[in-house]
Amino acid sequence: MIIGAQGLGRVLCQDLRARRTHLHFLADIQLNMSIVFAKRLDNVETSAIRELFKLLGKPGIISFAGGFPDSAVFDVDGLRAASQQALADDADAALQYGATEGFGPLREQLAQLMAARGVRDVGPGDLIVTTGSQQALDLVGKVLVEPDEPVLVEAPTFLATIQCFRLYGAQLLGVPIDGDGVRVDELEALIRQHRPRFVYLIPTFGNPSGATLTRARRKRVLELAVQYETVIVEDDPYGELYFDAPPPPSLLALSHEVPGSRDWLVHCGSLSKVLSPGLRLGWMVAPPALLSRAVMCKQFSDAHTSTFAQAVAARYLAGGRLPAALQRARAIYGSRAGVMCQALRDRLGAAVDFVDPQGGFFVWARLTGAAGSPRDSAALARAAVDRGVAFVPGAPFFCANPDPGTFRLSFATAGEDRIREGVDRLAAALAA
Amino acid sequence: MIIGAQGLGRVLCQDLRARRTHLHFLADIQLNMSIVFAKRLDNVETSAIRELFKLLGKPGIISFAGGFPDSAVFDVDGLRAASQQALADDADAALQYGATEGFGPLREQLAQLMAARGVRDVGPGDLIVTTGSQQALDLVGKVLVEPDEPVLVEAPTFLATIQCFRLYGAQLLGVPIDGDGVRVDELEALIRQHRPRFVYLIPTFGNPSGATLTRARRKRVLELAVQYETVIVEDDPYGELYFDAPPPPSLLALSHEVPGSRDWLVHCGSLSKVLSPGLRLGWMVAPPALLSRAVMCKQFSDAHTSTFAQAVAARYLAGGRLPAALQRARAIYGSRAGVMCQALRDRLGAAVDFVDPQGGFFVWARLTGAAGSPRDSAALARAAVDRGVAFVPGAPFFCANPDPGTFRLSFATAGEDRIREGVDRLAAALAA
Repeated sequence: MIIGAQGLGRVLCQDLRARRTHLHFLADIQLNMSIVFAKRLDNVETSAIRELFKLLGKPGIISFAGGFPDSAVFDVDGLRAASQQALADDADAALQYGATEGFGPLREQLAQLMAARGVRDVGPGDLIVTTGSQQALDLVGKVLVEPDEPVLVEAPTFLATIQCFRLYGAQLLGVPIDGDGVRVDELEALIRQHRPRFVYLIPTFGNPSGATLTRARRKRVLELAVQYETVIVEDDPYGELYFDAPPPPSLLALSHEVPGSRDWLVHCGSLSKVLSPGLRLGWMVAPPALLSRAVMCKQFSDAHTSTFAQAVAARYLAGGRLPAALQRARAIYGSRAGVMCQALRDRLGAAVDFVDPQGGFFVWARLTGAAGSPRDSAALARAAVDRGVAFVPGAPFFCANPDPGTFRLSFATAGEDRIREGVDRLAAALAA
Repeated sequence: MIIGAQGLGRVLCQDLRARRTHLHFLADIQLNMSIVFAKRLDNVETSAIRELFKLLGKPGIISFAGGFPDSAVFDVDGLRAASQQALADDADAALQYGATEGFGPLREQLAQLMAARGVRDVGPGDLIVTTGSQQALDLVGKVLVEPDEPVLVEAPTFLATIQCFRLYGAQLLGVPIDGDGVRVDELEALIRQHRPRFVYLIPTFGNPSGATLTRARRKRVLELAVQYETVIVEDDPYGELYFDAPPPPSLLALSHEVPGSRDWLVHCGSLSKVLSPGLRLGWMVAPPALLSRAVMCKQFSDAHTSTFAQAVAARYLAGGRLPAALQRARAIYGSRAGVMCQALRDRLGAAVDFVDPQGGFFVWARLTGAAGSPRDSAALARAAVDRGVAFVPGAPFFCANPDPGTFRLSFATAGEDRIREGVDRLAAALAA
């Protein structure tokens, strides 16, 4: 007997175990009990994601599906030098256990980085280092999510966030977005109605939306935080990857314009997109009461983030190479974005609708169904794989009520010629 | 109004927020709302731990309090070469996002390491890499703990485990131990009575107990796993740090002698004590259904462990330097253990009782109260700090009913002369 349905299954199973010695007539029935897992796992649905990743294994495929930086952009020389230096400086510190809050020299560098991004009054003690910004989200979930209580996220939003918060039992509600990011009128209405535990936003070059919240809307979000005493979690992995002009200041940088808003603001940063994801380094700025609880939870999650990786990053940042590396990355990703958008317009025309991203990794597009063209991106994704190009259908990015016509294209990892070729294949799939 | 008590506080708070616009007479009352945290945080008590760490800041103190390896034992040359090699081999792989399950070459090395430790039939696909073994415990908690359901742990056990499982709502029950590890008769009785979600054990050179489970008891534990269909979580960070003779095989290595036991066994390994804690590398072997769920949870916890750290460790292990490094570590820690035990006998005599550890980092001692000597290790700890020596009182290591006379002494980080001096100071504190 393999137990599938957990509720009844577990009761039945325990009952059988308890009575086993008395149930001699059951002795020759094969009891194949299985491990009973926590009910929180039932909140998570990963089959859509698994299906996506299966699509990517096909040889010769051009992938617009990933959400990662191009490794050709990594400053390998700089990181090699930094790793040698980190061990030469103080090997003991780099290889020993460290503070859960993070490695001191890295916290200092990150505070300086934030200051250069226009953030006032964030010192090394106001941030903690996390194992990628994914861990910052996990800590937010552990510290703030109460089972069955509401949390607001953009519709669409980062799919790992949806699953992460659901594992803590969050009742996710989606806030509509447009080309200028989250709609603040809808956000206010939903906050008033649901009094969420917190609101999670990617205000700059959103994943998957590519959208950037206007400065006016940013101020409104901060005002709503104060007015409704609601925590806002700002996830900002892409903000430095702008193409032409810098985006509006982050919510954190703007917070001094809205008195009291810092008391409700969590900011998650990341070195993954601008330096190297393999280091797994992110950080979190939060009000002290929240930060101390996140540290407590982190202590029991992974004790601390790799001190070795932290020491390498601290050395790298201290060496002053990041601005030049960012300039190169912006130029490369900006050109690719331009090539992709132009190719989409040239080859797909009225069949798709999208807003040109001003930074980040993603074009978020929608099948219009014009002139009998398809409306279902999941079907198109299957046809596209047959033609040798992969992308991510939009549905998994919605916590509810997915828009089946949407899909996400990453321009970050394919070269310009491959992007053109990939869009050609996409056009062929669309026409098929 | 600062909200402290969360239950009533939150209700009141929400009520006030909802009515705010209608409650004009409240307008000039200063409403200082605070962030409402998840109730799961109420399960954790860290003040005892914080108190401990405060003790350690005093200058000139000899610390027997830490649970970490001596950084003088690290093979810095080997790790430096490995880090250069890892970037030379394949910088892209080391710096890019990687599989949640772990970096392929490291999983292969870890499978070989397990084979060398007598474990049969564990291939790279049967284990995942974790961000230290602390993360393996966190994943066990996320995957298996159901709020308010029982979990059995040794009394005493690793204090971060207690807090980690409690954050998921576990009802922890302690199983008594003696010098030979967990008492299997008591374990069986508690399993029968409580039908725990799982049993967590550190069978070899336990933390804090230093105790090692006998081979006979190990087999019995595996039999109990099968008989009662109960998951056993074996945490084994210290097994390779034996002094004279190797300890009995791990539960995992013995599992082939007890048919069916592998279906109920989770094994957590770590490179922290034998190579470097700063890399934050551990691993977990588990039945496939559990492992796949742990991978799903890890995906939303930190995406994956630092590929850079994994690539360095893979290179280091492939270089074949670990056995020699382990030999050196065993000799150093073994001598220090001997010096500490002898000094305790010479200087504290009948006032303390302990079993000489055969490996690991810890002496677990108990104040006997003989001839009017103290019985309360917390009081002794305070007096000891005044005399310039620190250790950890035993109470926080018990999930319930602490034995107030117990305390933990680490011999891992102080040199032999400092150990003798520290025990002298301890004797002085005891006599005060």
